[in-house]
Amino acid sequence: MNAFRTSHRVHFGHCDPAGFIFYPRYFDIVHEAEEDWFRHALDWPFSRSVRELKLAFPVVSLATEYHAPSRLGDLLDIDVRVAQLGGSSMHLAFDVSCEGEARASVRLVVVQMDMTTERPVRIDGELRARIERFRGAAPS
Amino acid sequence: MNAFRTSHRVHFGHCDPAGFIFYPRYFDIVHEAEEDWFRHALDWPFSRSVRELKLAFPVVSLATEYHAPSRLGDLLDIDVRVAQLGGSSMHLAFDVSCEGEARASVRLVVVQMDMTTERPVRIDGELRARIERFRGAAPS
Amino acid sequence: MNAFRTSHRVHFGHCDPAGFIFYPRYFDIVHEAEEDWFRHALDWPFSRSVRELKLAFPVVSLATEYHAPSRLGDLLDIDVRVAQLGGSSMHLAFDVSCEGEARASVRLVVVQMDMTTERPVRIDGELRARIERFRGAAPS
Amino acid sequence: MNAFRTSHRVHFGHCDPAGFIFYPRYFDIVHEAEEDWFRHALDWPFSRSVRELKLAFPVVSLATEYHAPSRLGDLLDIDVRVAQLGGSSMHLAFDVSCEGEARASVRLVVVQMDMTTERPVRIDGELRARIERFRGAAPS
Repeated sequence: MNAFRTSHRVHFGHCDPAGFIFYPRYFDIVHEAEEDWFRHALDWPFSRSVRELKLAFPVVSLATEYHAPSRLGDLLDIDVRVAQLGGSSMHLAFDVSCEGEARASVRLVVVQMDMTTERPVRIDGELRARIERFRGAAPS
Repeated sequence: MNAFRTSHRVHFGHCDPAGFIFYPRYFDIVHEAEEDWFRHALDWPFSRSVRELKLAFPVVSLATEYHAPSRLGDLLDIDVRVAQLGGSSMHLAFDVSCEGEARASVRLVVVQMDMTTERPVRIDGELRARIERFRGAAPS
Repeated sequence: MNAFRTSHRVHFGHCDPAGFIFYPRYFDIVHEAEEDWFRHALDWPFSRSVRELKLAFPVVSLATEYHAPSRLGDLLDIDVRVAQLGGSSMHLAFDVSCEGEARASVRLVVVQMDMTTERPVRIDGELRARIERFRGAAPS
Repeated sequence: MNAFRTSHRVHFGHCDPAGFIFYPRYFDIVHEAEEDWFRHALDWPFSRSVRELKLAFPVVSLATEYHAPSRLGDLLDIDVRVAQLGGSSMHLAFDVSCEGEARASVRLVVVQMDMTTERPVRIDGELRARIERFRGAAPS
């Protein structure tokens, strides 16, 4: 199993009056990590899916545990893994840490969807083969 | 047990290139529903906690199921319930629907936190009494 | 000339670590006011343009002055006016106040655009007639 | 005069149903460029101002021209310059391009503000000296 790590800085606009990442903004960072993985690990930029193939990857369920707060200026390391690969769905695991300290565990189930028909579409061919390389048991 | 319902329109800025609510923006709507509940149901505006008492309610874990997509212009009804009330924590349940169709179930665990010390603070006194009125088994 | 006023509460997620609205979020509120005006004043919901007619209204230029800071819990009153109506463009003026205190003046130039061809489209017919009613000199 | 360039990718969450950057999200990117400039060019991370010194840099006015639309996947180059340096204020110029094509010109006036007293604070000492190096006439 391959692993993929990307890093994102916590910016001012991510933080709330308490000085921490406001949790909806956390998912902006997680989505950027997912796009980084598509672009750099799968060599399949999101723009190819969305703009050329009219395919999107909406989230159908998610679960998140926050282990420690994250603040302005923190550099977050995000490890991306494929926990399960179904027909049209993927279970993605994002483990977020900062200087080795666990910050958050995010689990998403996404489905490849045709943006025109709004129907699920099997993940197939070259994209499936590339995703398979990142498939592995995510730490629970 | 009391129930509380608030309604929020899906705006252009919530939606992504696929035309659906982008899932991080969904949590902006959920947080606005939480603030509506504090303001209108508990008569305890968030600004009292945050600006006067220097107390915030960060999320420590969350789980969400999306049952059907939501689009620009949809008017979402959000039912807010307290599934559990601990010492400093609350389990909040948000059931989102549109014209009676279930759209999403969001479960949050939040903790009352002192913004200065960054320590949990027991939910007590008048605020606890008001929250108790909304305590009840959330539908699974 | 008709005027249109809508009100939006400043929520936790709009605010930054300094406790004020983070300025990019201000434009989320302004865009919601624009959508309110389309829906309630023009009786022409944004979803009709975007979802049915495949027309959008991107911003081509904007200018903003902030007169006083806005904080969590403030209820902002937003007055919307049409300062100029061109062929495919509109100059929109948003004057934001809170309990009578001026908070911000936002001037936007938007253009009606075909989402498929990405070309400007003349604002015409019934929509033009409805917009004309809100045309007038905005206070400088 | 020194110049500073930073690059930011247009992500899915920046884009609206028309497929372009939604203009409020544009300012999130501009703010990240401002923070990059503080961190990498001035060697004065925003977290030092905000978390240690309790100083913030709210925007008091802004003007923006959009020259061409930006889409999912575009890599934006952002040139940052100081157009004017007052006592407590700075006029910042951000010129955004993609593969050499001008996309947007953003002009911000920001003021250094004490987060506790909410009063302007003169930009002084080492920070002023470092900012001076980036002072110069921005292209109109």
